[in-house]
Formats: sequence, C-alpha cells, structure tokens
Amino acid sequence: MIFERIAIIGAGLIGSSVARAARETGAAETIAVFDASEDVRVRACALGLGEVADSAEEAVAKADLVLLCVPVGAMKDAALSAVSEVKTGAIVTDVGSVKSAVIADVAPHVPAHAFFVPGHPIAGTERSGPEAGFAALFKRRWHILTPLADPRAEYAAAVEKLEAFWRALGADVERMDAARHDVVLAVTSHLPHLIAFNIVAMAEDLESVTESEVVKYSASGFRDFTRIAASDPIMWRDVFLNNREAVLEVLGRFTEDLAALQRAIRWGDGQVLYDIFDRARRMRREVIEAGQETPAPNWGREN
Amino acid sequence: MIFERIAIIGAGLIGSSVARAARETGAAETIAVFDASEDVRVRACALGLGEVADSAEEAVAKADLVLLCVPVGAMKDAALSAVSEVKTGAIVTDVGSVKSAVIADVAPHVPAHAFFVPGHPIAGTERSGPEAGFAALFKRRWHILTPLADPRAEYAAAVEKLEAFWRALGADVERMDAARHDVVLAVTSHLPHLIAFNIVAMAEDLESVTESEVVKYSASGFRDFTRIAASDPIMWRDVFLNNREAVLEVLGRFTEDLAALQRAIRWGDGQVLYDIFDRARRMRREVIEAGQETPAPNWGREN
Repeated sequence: MIFERIAIIGAGLIGSSVARAARETGAAETIAVFDASEDVRVRACALGLGEVADSAEEAVAKADLVLLCVPVGAMKDAALSAVSEVKTGAIVTDVGSVKSAVIADVAPHVPAHAFFVPGHPIAGTERSGPEAGFAALFKRRWHILTPLADPRAEYAAAVEKLEAFWRALGADVERMDAARHDVVLAVTSHLPHLIAFNIVAMAEDLESVTESEVVKYSASGFRDFTRIAASDPIMWRDVFLNNREAVLEVLGRFTEDLAALQRAIRWGDGQVLYDIFDRARRMRREVIEAGQETPAPNWGREN
Repeated sequence: MIFERIAIIGAGLIGSSVARAARETGAAETIAVFDASEDVRVRACALGLGEVADSAEEAVAKADLVLLCVPVGAMKDAALSAVSEVKTGAIVTDVGSVKSAVIADVAPHVPAHAFFVPGHPIAGTERSGPEAGFAALFKRRWHILTPLADPRAEYAAAVEKLEAFWRALGADVERMDAARHDVVLAVTSHLPHLIAFNIVAMAEDLESVTESEVVKYSASGFRDFTRIAASDPIMWRDVFLNNREAVLEVLGRFTEDLAALQRAIRWGDGQVLYDIFDRARRMRREVIEAGQETPAPNWGREN
C-alpha cells in the first residue's frame, strides 16, 4: 500500500482506470471518487469504482493523494472545488495531456501545506467514460511527472511517493520539465491526433467521394486514422487550446514537409518519394524494439 | 476449382497470399509462380508456394489465369514479358492499387485472344515479401474489379469467372469504373499513406525533439501512423507517380481543411475544434458497423 486514501476527481477512462488499478494492486487502501456529472457518479457507483462522493470537497476531505482526472480545460474548476481543502501533507496530481497550462491553472490553488506534482500517463484508448477503464491500462506504459521547482525536502519526498504509486500501478516513471513535455507531446500525440481528426472529418463531406464509399473501402488505410479520431472531442479541444504554441510550431513543420511531398508528386520525382518513404519505414522497427508497439502485423486485428 | 492452372507474377505479400489462398481453398489446381528477383524465387520455392518457374514466359505458358502482382511501376515490364504469349482464352488480371495507369500500361500488350480484367484487392498488411503472405488475407475484404469496355460475351464471362475466383478466396467482389476507383482510393488509401509517411519521416529529423523521445512516447498517438508508414516504399512511390491527379486533388482539400484547424487553434476557437472532432468521432462507428474494423479498443493490441 502506497496511500491510505486517494481521491479521484473525474471518473472517465483514466480516472476509472486509476480506481481499478489502485484497488487491484493494493496501491491504495480506500478510493474516493467524484465526478461533476451526476450520471457518471451513478455509473461509477454501479461499477463499484470506490466510495462515490456527492461533492469534490467530500471526496478529498481525508485523502492523502488527490488525482485530477478531468479534461485540461476543466482543471481550474476542479482545483478550485477540490484542492483548497486538502489535508496537511496531501499530494495533488493530475493526468492532463498538457502540463504548462495545467500548472498555471492548478498550482495557485494548492495550499502551501500540500504538494502539487503534475503528471501525465502515456496511456489510453479511443474509448471514453467510466465503463471504458481497466486496471491494466498503465502497465508497461510511461508516466511522465513534471515536478515544480519546489526546494523543500518534503516536496522531493512527495514526488518519490507519487512515483512509487504509479510504479505500483505498473507504469514506468520518467521526470521531465513541463515545457519540454509539452513540446515532446505536441509531436508524439497532439499533432497525430490533429491530423487524424482532420482527415476523418474531411472524408465525411467530400464532393467527389461519398461517405459510404470511404467507409466501405476504409481497410485500405483510412480506418487506421479513425481510431484516434474517435477520442473524446472535449478532451482534445482542450489540449489544442492549451498547447497552442508547441502545436502550431510542429504543425508548421508538418505542412512544410507535406508541401515538399506534394511537389515531388506533381513533378514525378520518384527518388524524393522513395527516400522519404524508406526513412519512415525504419521508424516502426524502433518503436517495436522499444516495446511501445506490438510486432504483430496489422496489430493482430482479425483482418 | 475455378481455374486449372494459374500463374502468379510477383511473389510478394499479395502474390504469395494468392498462392496460399488458391491452394488452401482449392480455387486453382496448379499454381505457377515467377518473380523477377532470383532471391525471391528461391524463397518462394522454400515456402512451397507452387511451381516456381525460371521465367515469366514459362510460368504463364499454359495458364488459364495470369495474375500480375508487382508494384504499379513494374506492370508494363511484367506485361511485356508475361502476357504476350498467354494461351487462347486466358484471363489476365492485376492487383495494382491504381487502375487507370495500369490499364494504359498493360492493356496494349494483352493479345486479342485473351481477356484483361484489372483488379485491386483492398487487403494487405504493413509487411512485404513472400514470407509475409497468408491464405486468409482476402477473407471478408473487398476486391474491386474495373472491367474494360469490351462488348464481347466471352469478356463478360471472363469477368464472371475472375469474380468467382476471388469469391472462392474469401473476398467480396465489387465492380467499378477505373477512374472512379482511382478517386475513391486516393481518399481511402493513398492520402492516408502519404500523411503517415510524412509525419513519421518528419519526426525522424526534428530539431526540437529527438528521435528517441518520439519512439519512447509514441504510444500517445504517433505509433498508430508508423504501421502504414512501414509499407513497401517502392510500391508506394509507384502509386503516387501513377495516381497524381486524384492524389493532388484530395491532398489540396486536406491541407485546406488543416489550415482551418490551424486557424481555430491560433485564435482559440474551441467551438470549431469541438465540432470537427465530434464529426470525426462518428466515422469510426460506421467503419466498425460496416465490418471493416475490429470493435476492440486499441485494436485489441496488448496495451
């Protein structure tokens, strides 16, 4: 057991997975859960995720660890209602996909007698809601902590303890500067989602090709993009609104490179195309060798 | 049995899968195989794909069906060496991802006593080579035939017979105009691959983020794109060189829509972002309901 009592604010895919994993691994003795939606609270209760509280204040009252598991745009409100009353020595963390903006929104509301250690699990599926969570979600996945520049020895101890918690849930923990996190994730996560959303939404209202044709022949490549484009639209709206600079920077680079490909196609420059495609091919081997992807062709999905 | 003797020219992922499927289903009595690469011929022989011939001419000599399973850019040479000597009444088909260009390259070389019926299986994985093939590749996948405007009754019968062959291999067969095929596939296949190649190659030489960071945190979205970006670079170079008009058209639409997303991010227009993301989300349900995708979260891959 790492914590006696944890409070999870937000019982979606991530929050409900933390609840399940904390119970299954015994990382927490007692699990309190709150969600701003009454409907979600009822479902969390039916799922047996923990002690479902009627208010954020009630959930966090005696908690040793408070986890803010809400969309990035809702972090400020969650902090305002959940964090000001935490007990002395409590640790507050979050699971937001953007770190600098969340720190700006949450840190001012964490009392001096508590410790705010921002975090981000590199884990998830395209599903949303409390039913979508599962205990193994964090296993062998990276969890990034972006500790504040707090010189107190107790703060360092709080970071260690939170790290132990995520390790108990099966994650590998890495520490990083918040600004660096936001740049790295703009590349590995935010841009890929933006591209996927764009191509899928585009294909829905083409003039030249019908939506049913796109669906019918999607196994030729398109369907791959529909997976991450099925992710929660509110969560992703908030990511882009809160990591604007880094996303626009990497998006600029993407469109620049795409223009070069476009030009090579227009002028029939096969060598340029081959060289770029060949470089791209090597990347998958590295991803598989790093244990970040299954080696099974087609992800092992049934055809 | 649909054909007594078939000849497969090109023993890569598709060709070797046709060989396996034709044997397993009994759709062909005898299977002759030829590949321009001696190394591939040796491997095809070791895999027991069929009677491996020393030349294309030898492979096709007595064949009732000739399947050209080479990259689109190699179709003309394959036709020149393999098709002129086919026997009377033989059917010639191909599996190219582009149809108009292949028809222009192959049709002039098919003798009047044979029947050329172009085709394209909407099936594949990111793997290449004779070892990558498997008999179930075409099961419950669409196979598109783009018959020529040939008024002969024997031609119509040849189309029917080829359709029966692909159905025997497990595919659902659809007929389509070649030009229409090229536009539809530009959307469902060619653009998705181009985007994937572009983002993966881009991530390999960023200034701001290292390649190892991209690999390490790729589970946050990026890894999805590495799958189709691992596809054969020669095959894909040829696709883009041979379906230029349709690809440039749909690429123009993609970049236009992406510019709108970029602007919404810059100006913080959350409603525009939400509406586009929400639209994209619905598309996946349709793809799953159409039987073109597994409903398992994360494709059922182990985390």
